[in-house]
Amino acid sequence: MDRYPFPVARVGIIGGGQLGRMLVKAAKQLGCSCIVVDPTPGSPAGQVSGQQIVADSHDPQALLELAEQVDVITFDIEDIDVAILAEIAAKGHHILPSCELLADIQDKLRQKRLLTRLGIPTADFIAADQVDTEQLADFGYPLVQKARRGGYDGRGVVVMKSAADAGQVLPVPSLLERFVPAEKELAVIVVRGQDGEVRSYAPVEMCFRPGENILDMLLAPARIEPQTAAAARRLATEAVTALGGVGIFGIEMFLTVDGKLLINEVAPRTHNSGHYTIEACITDQFEQHLRAITGLPLGVTDQMLPAAMINLLGAPGASGAPVIQGLRAALAIPGVSVHFYGKAQTRPFRKMGHVTVLDADIDRAREKAEQVRALLAIGGQNP
Amino acid sequence: MDRYPFPVARVGIIGGGQLGRMLVKAAKQLGCSCIVVDPTPGSPAGQVSGQQIVADSHDPQALLELAEQVDVITFDIEDIDVAILAEIAAKGHHILPSCELLADIQDKLRQKRLLTRLGIPTADFIAADQVDTEQLADFGYPLVQKARRGGYDGRGVVVMKSAADAGQVLPVPSLLERFVPAEKELAVIVVRGQDGEVRSYAPVEMCFRPGENILDMLLAPARIEPQTAAAARRLATEAVTALGGVGIFGIEMFLTVDGKLLINEVAPRTHNSGHYTIEACITDQFEQHLRAITGLPLGVTDQMLPAAMINLLGAPGASGAPVIQGLRAALAIPGVSVHFYGKAQTRPFRKMGHVTVLDADIDRAREKAEQVRALLAIGGQNP
Repeated sequence: MDRYPFPVARVGIIGGGQLGRMLVKAAKQLGCSCIVVDPTPGSPAGQVSGQQIVADSHDPQALLELAEQVDVITFDIEDIDVAILAEIAAKGHHILPSCELLADIQDKLRQKRLLTRLGIPTADFIAADQVDTEQLADFGYPLVQKARRGGYDGRGVVVMKSAADAGQVLPVPSLLERFVPAEKELAVIVVRGQDGEVRSYAPVEMCFRPGENILDMLLAPARIEPQTAAAARRLATEAVTALGGVGIFGIEMFLTVDGKLLINEVAPRTHNSGHYTIEACITDQFEQHLRAITGLPLGVTDQMLPAAMINLLGAPGASGAPVIQGLRAALAIPGVSVHFYGKAQTRPFRKMGHVTVLDADIDRAREKAEQVRALLAIGGQNP
Repeated sequence: MDRYPFPVARVGIIGGGQLGRMLVKAAKQLGCSCIVVDPTPGSPAGQVSGQQIVADSHDPQALLELAEQVDVITFDIEDIDVAILAEIAAKGHHILPSCELLADIQDKLRQKRLLTRLGIPTADFIAADQVDTEQLADFGYPLVQKARRGGYDGRGVVVMKSAADAGQVLPVPSLLERFVPAEKELAVIVVRGQDGEVRSYAPVEMCFRPGENILDMLLAPARIEPQTAAAARRLATEAVTALGGVGIFGIEMFLTVDGKLLINEVAPRTHNSGHYTIEACITDQFEQHLRAITGLPLGVTDQMLPAAMINLLGAPGASGAPVIQGLRAALAIPGVSVHFYGKAQTRPFRKMGHVTVLDADIDRAREKAEQVRALLAIGGQNP
């Protein structure tokens, strides 16, 4: 019979944001202890871990200090200096997903090239170190410029429909990608264990506000044909297997107007589109990630009830200490779960929390989530 | 529209055990901050709250210090000096459930008298300050002796079938209760808001090991007729309403062999029999308690899937740092969620965690829970 000491594993988390926070909660339940590295004292994850090294993710001393106190290191952000991680790994410390894979994924150009090499379908693209108008025109509109590094939550991505949009070009090393006329955008959460076992959750539908690159609502499961859902899960599983990843991966993809599936982006970490699993699934994405990186068996991925999820973003123009409007009204709606991330300061569009709505009828879940969005707002003391 | 600052409420918790720990997790999600009072540094709840006053629940200074830093005080234990709480309440601090109600409930004799006065059916009883053999014989066997104070997890309760058991008598102020031949023991989790709204979860079935007073397994929902389930919910609701309680209450009751429902005991706090709600319900008992005591609207109590729950007790004879046996094997069973409480030392029969198993078929859930019980054991470094 297997035997574990207590804690079952000491887990180091680089990045102490909301993903780390939810990971810490799952970790403690599973008998693991956590140390978080984050530059903000009392970070969202640090508030629940009880142990935080206050340093940024590029600080070699801090990361080594972390490594020496834990059994396995993981991360809730991608913007980490992989050279530092490689040195730590070379000393025999465990980092999952691996720093080689993180290096391949955190640079969107390398990610695209790798996926292409592995035979995973993605939109056509070219590298573009210094983008100029001529290059844009040569590639042809409509196109998408993606910064190679540091993009997040829609930042670092510009859609250009025609030459009239060329003025929005980002002055950074990028890739140019063919704009994909998508019927829907989907995300599949995949977990892969150290033994190579892979499991996926049902595809979720990512709804964006027209003309904006910010996620508006997430519907789980996606409103697509069963054979499309099965194909999306197969593709996501194939991608994570080909990448050799261990842990949770968020696989964003396009369902094109002609019914094809193309992978848009791979996130080597727990993913915003998987938050609904906390309420809707027996084993959520955070516990799955921990099971995978600590070598425990994977959990089930079945969904108990349909879900709609919205992010709670800081209101435009508001900053300072948060002021929550409409909380009572939102919580009065049956099936609503509100998650706050413990951030002491709000800023316009900052992710301050999220709301999951469960309902046996997904259309009713969506309607309730829309009601919540109309009711609940995160203002600030500096309005 | 309603407006809340952040944190939404500062919650003080007297007692930092597992109930407090799960309460803190729910509180942080709901945007509340928590301070825990517990004599053990790094208590289960203190590990996640980030703020603990190291003191025991009878320390007037510590409780006043707590009161001055929070908006509302609640508790995860009943063994609190209510005179101290009354003084704090008199200064205008909020304590929920109220200290008057806690005083009535923490003394089992007062609790029985109150329930009787309110017309709530319970087993017949008499007060017994100093129990002697003659009094036992006069009352008549079979009977149950219950200590007025300090009973917990089966401690402070002795079942005497005949005069041969009289030697087990507890030398403490007690009540003697008619032994109830029960078909089943049930528990109903009830939440009551500040506005008097009451909601109940479906009755759960408490299965005890033959001849022992320790909970063996909990099945949710209970395997009883729908009309019995409805009657149990009505009775539990009636009791909490009559008591005027605010927050979560665990109402234990007997279903007698002749089909009657008698309340056995009222717990003025989140309850072991409600742990299954974490996975099986959208709004769990911990979030419900917080919603109630902070004046937020109550959540839904519907159950998504049947559940079986077992407590993880320290193995007999084992002590010291825990050694967990069979964790991998247990987690490999589909639908198993393991909860550890973060206790650094095990002792025989100490509650170290619990396991919830969800399955669409409650009999399969029960079988899986039995498998987990056979596989998973909490040994100690001092075996």
